[in-house]
Amino acid sequence: MKIALVQMSCTNGTAANLRKAIGLIGKAADKGAKIVCLQELFRTPYFCKKEEAGNFDLAEPIPGPTTEALSRIAKENSIVIIASLFEKRRKGVYHNTAVVIDADGGLLGKYRKMHIPDDPGFYEKFYFVPGDLGFRSFKTRYADIGVLVCWDQWFPEAARLTALAGADILFYPTAIGWKKGKAVEAKSYEESWRTVQRGHAIANGVYVAAANRVGTEEDFKYWGGSFVADPFGEIVRQGGSGEEIVIVDCDLKKVERTRREWPFLRDRRIDAYQGIASR
Amino acid sequence: MKIALVQMSCTNGTAANLRKAIGLIGKAADKGAKIVCLQELFRTPYFCKKEEAGNFDLAEPIPGPTTEALSRIAKENSIVIIASLFEKRRKGVYHNTAVVIDADGGLLGKYRKMHIPDDPGFYEKFYFVPGDLGFRSFKTRYADIGVLVCWDQWFPEAARLTALAGADILFYPTAIGWKKGKAVEAKSYEESWRTVQRGHAIANGVYVAAANRVGTEEDFKYWGGSFVADPFGEIVRQGGSGEEIVIVDCDLKKVERTRREWPFLRDRRIDAYQGIASR
Repeated sequence: MKIALVQMSCTNGTAANLRKAIGLIGKAADKGAKIVCLQELFRTPYFCKKEEAGNFDLAEPIPGPTTEALSRIAKENSIVIIASLFEKRRKGVYHNTAVVIDADGGLLGKYRKMHIPDDPGFYEKFYFVPGDLGFRSFKTRYADIGVLVCWDQWFPEAARLTALAGADILFYPTAIGWKKGKAVEAKSYEESWRTVQRGHAIANGVYVAAANRVGTEEDFKYWGGSFVADPFGEIVRQGGSGEEIVIVDCDLKKVERTRREWPFLRDRRIDAYQGIASR
Repeated sequence: MKIALVQMSCTNGTAANLRKAIGLIGKAADKGAKIVCLQELFRTPYFCKKEEAGNFDLAEPIPGPTTEALSRIAKENSIVIIASLFEKRRKGVYHNTAVVIDADGGLLGKYRKMHIPDDPGFYEKFYFVPGDLGFRSFKTRYADIGVLVCWDQWFPEAARLTALAGADILFYPTAIGWKKGKAVEAKSYEESWRTVQRGHAIANGVYVAAANRVGTEEDFKYWGGSFVADPFGEIVRQGGSGEEIVIVDCDLKKVERTRREWPFLRDRRIDAYQGIASR
């Protein structure tokens, strides 16, 4: 069962970004991918670099024009698509939302980003209401999958709850990079970014697949490096820093096999974890 | 503030093991270490390789002869000692327990291993009642520290709760290795072992320090490789496969600095984590 991670650069032309994404999804399908995951907010540049009220114009309803376009290509190719969108829920309520479109083109469900960052260059708390749908698993035609988004990557709770919900693969649409001139710090940051996610794979016995943006937008460079880690936390394949489709053949039986050899879920001390739900 | 991890081999001579440990603790103190952590069950061979009722004779009360001996050396050297012991709580109730002895020689507290493994070669469920003291932080003279033991390493909940309790360094006395002839699998297992713990360092912004046994006991080889990871998850130093004291100078200010730059604790969704306390 092949999965594909699409990493691409974006311009201000949102229609062109969608066309590019659809082109890359088609290529991934041609190569046999059954589940294709796009990077975070693939329709636009990463606009959260600044707090500008005008940017709310970039949001759209779900279902909406983008999900309609993606549903068509999902159905045509009999593939599952995971797409990260700027969701307009109602006037004044916006989310950073990932949709899962099943291989029949139907909108299977959505995940609203639960952990919202606010750091220099990542002013997401200005734009996004924190998610209110919780951590979920989606039964797609090819696999039970979970979707989490970018900042969620740093939270073991998110990975755990999504795995407990039944997901065998955790997908992470991402937009992470560094300010120009900070390449040295970024190298170590990128290593930490990958390591913490490999840790989620190991602790939960699941595949982890992160699709990250590439390209330069103003003074930011997004590092790409999309990767798939297997349930042992080993990197199966990792992209470079340019546009690329990272394709990995996942052996879903490995999830159960790993959990039998490393029976962590058996030994969880659920009687002693209540403190996780407090500060 | 220097910490030391002692990795050593053990024989059936429990008195000799204690003498060896005390000798190595003395050396670590001479090199300026302020907190010294011994490996899991350092007084004996790793007896859980088999289920034998006679092995319960190896247990001792806490406080008991070992804590008394270690308290003396802690006081003499003004150092903190973390020691993993086979605790006899009462007839029929035994724990895998780590004690924290403060720099004045006083027994500051203990942690009873919460997650108990049971795998071929690690039959701990036969010997140890799962811990009932929860996840704790200890205010030692030199730092706020947490202690977790071996199998706990694979559980993000344990690291999170110990960090939330206030620990800036997580110590993991360990006895992990492989059956002879399985060196290839072991290499990948060792990498996963290190990765998941580096993930804990990153997710919580703490130092992680694991002291692992070395040497061959019957058909098992313990791989050593004791290491300290900083709050970014980078390995500061890592031991080899022989007897060794791994010493690392920790900058405790890095914990707060890291958490300001990577404010994960700020964004935890405590309203949505209740599911962690269920299967």
